Amino acid sequence: MANLSQLMENEVFMAFASYTTIVLSKMMFMSTATAFYRLTRKVFANPEDCAGFGKGENAKKYLRTDDRVERVRRAHLNDLENIVPFLGIGLLYSLSGPDLSTAILHFRLFVGARIYHTIAYLTPLPQPNRALAFFIGYGVTLSMAYRLLKSKLYL
Amino acid sequence: MANLSQLMENEVFMAFASYTTIVLSKMMFMSTATAFYRLTRKVFANPEDCAGFGKGENAKKYLRTDDRVERVRRAHLNDLENIVPFLGIGLLYSLSGPDLSTAILHFRLFVGARIYHTIAYLTPLPQPNRALAFFIGYGVTLSMAYRLLKSKLYL
Amino acid sequence: MANLSQLMENEVFMAFASYTTIVLSKMMFMSTATAFYRLTRKVFANPEDCAGFGKGENAKKYLRTDDRVERVRRAHLNDLENIVPFLGIGLLYSLSGPDLSTAILHFRLFVGARIYHTIAYLTPLPQPNRALAFFIGYGVTLSMAYRLLKSKLYL
Repeated sequence: MANLSQLMENEVFMAFASYTTIVLSKMMFMSTATAFYRLTRKVFANPEDCAGFGKGENAKKYLRTDDRVERVRRAHLNDLENIVPFLGIGLLYSLSGPDLSTAILHFRLFVGARIYHTIAYLTPLPQPNRALAFFIGYGVTLSMAYRLLKSKLYL
Repeated sequence: MANLSQLMENEVFMAFASYTTIVLSKMMFMSTATAFYRLTRKVFANPEDCAGFGKGENAKKYLRTDDRVERVRRAHLNDLENIVPFLGIGLLYSLSGPDLSTAILHFRLFVGARIYHTIAYLTPLPQPNRALAFFIGYGVTLSMAYRLLKSKLYL
Repeated sequence: MANLSQLMENEVFMAFASYTTIVLSKMMFMSTATAFYRLTRKVFANPEDCAGFGKGENAKKYLRTDDRVERVRRAHLNDLENIVPFLGIGLLYSLSGPDLSTAILHFRLFVGARIYHTIAYLTPLPQPNRALAFFIGYGVTLSMAYRLLKSKLYL
């Protein structure tokens, strides 16, 4: 396992691993938030989920949508749409030998922006808080993509 | 390509590659399941998709939603929300030099839980079957994230 | 960083990095397209997003859905559902030592099919344009998965 241990001794790669794990754990927290709002507000998407709250027609009234639940679900989907490109592009960028401080700046900005995006979405904060958070994360990913394609393009 | 071949000779990495390929293929099957229900139940989201079933206003009646199709779509989205963190955290965890049997236990539990989640969602089985499957997969991913951050944190 | 630089000198891996960066950037473009249609058509999902267009009840009329916006969102979700398996399976496939020309054929077909899928979805082109684009990308990913499991299965 000689080479693997060398990979994990690379500082850029270790930083990428740490920030990625944090931002993915944050994204996983959205599932718990959805479950929390579904249970406390009794808002369900599946008949089997509300079977415990009543029988037959009585349970069906819980099959509804709710602003709060839909808001968390939109925040979750936005996370997916933005963290997947970060995951792919960031991994390849980390392997392309970038400068350590530049790489860490990218990772910190992205993770900070996504955490702020979640806060802005769930509070909710007035715009342009959420838009700004979105565009910072978006810009960071595009900046890494540009760096990758400029230095390593092979088609 | 000396190092690449060494990477794929690493047993943890090979196990990760195998289980990931299986769980991603399972997720891809959800697209086929959605297409199957859309076609057999004639339930479409786009006007161009049902053009073959009638002309003009006659085709528009197929632009509707259906419980069965929505159920498959929710199962698919839940897969995405959970397999993306597994993909990222699991890859980095595999590279961090974990014990082989511990790593394989994580991968097996995750893949088994996600397959059971799909069965529980599509049958559907009564709760808490699906919730249990969800939390096993969730816990496995968090356990790998914890191991990674504990051993390799670099911020 | 000896090994990392060797990884990025591997031609298959460099090609994977280039094509993945392109297809992920294309997927990120879908967010901009959604924002563009939301702003030009004044169709919003969150009250705070349309606060600039009027006060109180007057702003609430912009909380609606729109065919065009929903179409872009479906195209975006379809991208996610298909690019995530490509990302995971393609990365592992690239590391499994495939033939360079075979690998590049896979990557080109996938990226071309996904770009064509977006064009077919957003124009929209009549079926089976979009279905064909979908199945080419789907088949490419399954072909890489088959190659991986055949050569490197380790359960």
